[in-house]
Amino acid sequence: MATHKLLLLPGDGIGPEVMGEVEKIVRWFDTQGIASFAIERDLVGGAAYDDHGEAISNAAMDRAQAADAVLFGAVGGPKWADVPYRARPEAGLLRLRKDLGLFANIRPAICYPALADASSLKRELVEGLDIVIVRELTGGVYFGEPKEIVTLEDGSQRAVDTQLYTTGEIDRIARVAFDLARKRRNKVSSAEKNNVMKSGVLWKQVVTGVHKADYADVELEHVLADNCAMQLVRRPKQYDVIVTDNLFGDILSDVAAMLTGSLGMLPSASLGAEDPATGARKALYEPVHGSAPDIAGQGLANPIAMIGSFAMALRYSFGLIEAADMLERAVTNALASGLRTRDIAATGANAVGTAEMGDAVLKEL
Amino acid sequence: MATHKLLLLPGDGIGPEVMGEVEKIVRWFDTQGIASFAIERDLVGGAAYDDHGEAISNAAMDRAQAADAVLFGAVGGPKWADVPYRARPEAGLLRLRKDLGLFANIRPAICYPALADASSLKRELVEGLDIVIVRELTGGVYFGEPKEIVTLEDGSQRAVDTQLYTTGEIDRIARVAFDLARKRRNKVSSAEKNNVMKSGVLWKQVVTGVHKADYADVELEHVLADNCAMQLVRRPKQYDVIVTDNLFGDILSDVAAMLTGSLGMLPSASLGAEDPATGARKALYEPVHGSAPDIAGQGLANPIAMIGSFAMALRYSFGLIEAADMLERAVTNALASGLRTRDIAATGANAVGTAEMGDAVLKEL
Ligand SMILES: CC(C)[C@H](C(=O)O)[C@@H](O)C(=O)O
Ligand SMILES: CC(C)[C@H](C(=O)O)[C@@H](O)C(=O)O
Repeated sequence: MATHKLLLLPGDGIGPEVMGEVEKIVRWFDTQGIASFAIERDLVGGAAYDDHGEAISNAAMDRAQAADAVLFGAVGGPKWADVPYRARPEAGLLRLRKDLGLFANIRPAICYPALADASSLKRELVEGLDIVIVRELTGGVYFGEPKEIVTLEDGSQRAVDTQLYTTGEIDRIARVAFDLARKRRNKVSSAEKNNVMKSGVLWKQVVTGVHKADYADVELEHVLADNCAMQLVRRPKQYDVIVTDNLFGDILSDVAAMLTGSLGMLPSASLGAEDPATGARKALYEPVHGSAPDIAGQGLANPIAMIGSFAMALRYSFGLIEAADMLERAVTNALASGLRTRDIAATGANAVGTAEMGDAVLKEL
Repeated sequence: MATHKLLLLPGDGIGPEVMGEVEKIVRWFDTQGIASFAIERDLVGGAAYDDHGEAISNAAMDRAQAADAVLFGAVGGPKWADVPYRARPEAGLLRLRKDLGLFANIRPAICYPALADASSLKRELVEGLDIVIVRELTGGVYFGEPKEIVTLEDGSQRAVDTQLYTTGEIDRIARVAFDLARKRRNKVSSAEKNNVMKSGVLWKQVVTGVHKADYADVELEHVLADNCAMQLVRRPKQYDVIVTDNLFGDILSDVAAMLTGSLGMLPSASLGAEDPATGARKALYEPVHGSAPDIAGQGLANPIAMIGSFAMALRYSFGLIEAADMLERAVTNALASGLRTRDIAATGANAVGTAEMGDAVLKEL
């Protein structure tokens, strides 16, 4: 039996709590002999900064490079509001994305039937919602240079960020979106601001070209990013796969996630390019939610997004399809039994904690 | 009686239709002797392009510079999808903003009680909603240079946009937000991405400085733009005034507007700096909605956002406070009488058209 190399980076806030529940599940698969994992652990974010002054160490980066998959919890919190920009908790995540070449961020926004009432939106607008945001993750304004603050002669300052996209970067993320759409409802909505941004002009042009050349069977529509945000609120079910750049993807995927009422339930995958020889690709899996410092350390966080992220790793990085199905079924059953963490409970009164939810999933395995 | 110079730029799509209703109202104020207007009209957007090949002519720009206020309808539509980038319909609006120095875009998002059910959100989340987005309008990625597409040696392309902010630009928009908050619920939420953008770092720093120096009595919070978008969906009433940059403002104000269920009802103002000698400032007023090509030419558009924009002009550019109150009351009364255009009607069946709604407002004056 192949041993799968898994790196756990719990990070800050509720990160370690939700990762703890995944560790129980990993161990279960191991002891049952269903799969074999070689687990490593390291620090990222504020926890790493507190330890050694950087948001991620070179040793941790080496481990990430060597792993078959990285499981990432969450980073950040008010404690690190004043650390140097270079070492802010988010820098650890950004370095992982960039250095591992994780250009394709896949963020499903699914409204679980049992949770439709937890949405801000009227039930009929979100019931059955199942869309995916494919966000470009290693380009755009996140990494473009120059990125700096300059002090001018009169003592005032000037900040610059650079939004930069190449044909190649847009081409490869477009293909991820079209491939995904083919396995779903066969529709891609490409969001940009070609009316004010040259990167939007190029984005639209390249997506159109890829579509024409290789994916003419998929329905393609172009939508301005501001209108897309509006439409997500107005009638989210019109979408299937939305493909967009790093910055718009950051915002649109958060809006989409929030719509579902299931924010604490949503996993995500960040994937690198496939190795043409082995078919392997670098991958990082993380919950869509953040470090939630307000509830950290209290055992209240919902571990399902983190558990679901591990299920995605089983499926996409390890090819353990049956194990992934089994785990996802266990989550569904735990929810069906009526168990709710605070974030998805109708009233807080009967909510269970992180460990109880994790144990319930384990029991359903 | 002073004569107020008003430039009407109806633009494209439903722009001319909704502007037509405002013209009736302007004429009414004139013939009643309540105020005196010198009206000019010109082309902008696709209409201007069809006429002379540019999205706005120099002559129209001269008229805008000379006017006390510009009323702007909407621009764009599929008809002009392939015009040269330089002459695309939006370029007319962008030139007006830039050349008139309209740095402060004020976009209220108000949920009219009678329309709370038209919102996608559950009634209790939007009932009584009254927030304002203060969007920086002449800086950021909209205008920063370089902004270009370059063809590389291998024939592939590379697009660049530049997000650029200076201390002075952030300082003046922050002051607009704080001043506005003082007349409201005294709270400002400043949205940026200081965790990934240097312009966000400078933004947060300058807003904090302005607050400390001159507005310590106003409550200030900093929020990441992606989280702000989420929170707008989750619990919009937590906000009073949101201040943000050009690109985030574009998206956040659209989300906020859509939440209200009153998209066709929301006016906006774009203001320049006050002349220290005269107190006058350049100003453009426009509905938050766009040119809605799908319903253009059918007399179905809701003219209330455009009429409300004229009411804002009466109030802020002409100092005609009573006339503004009178007009806003007339809108409220027309709605109270049960009249609904298609966009705000519970069912389309009894909806009235653009002219009927405009006439009803006129009758209530
Ligand atoms: C933590 C932060 C750097 C990150 C981002 O902006 O990409 C987060 O918001 C996300 O969406 O993963
Ligand atoms: C028409 C377009 C250029 C404009 C913008 O992006 O600013 C519009 O979306 C707006 O919000 O006024």
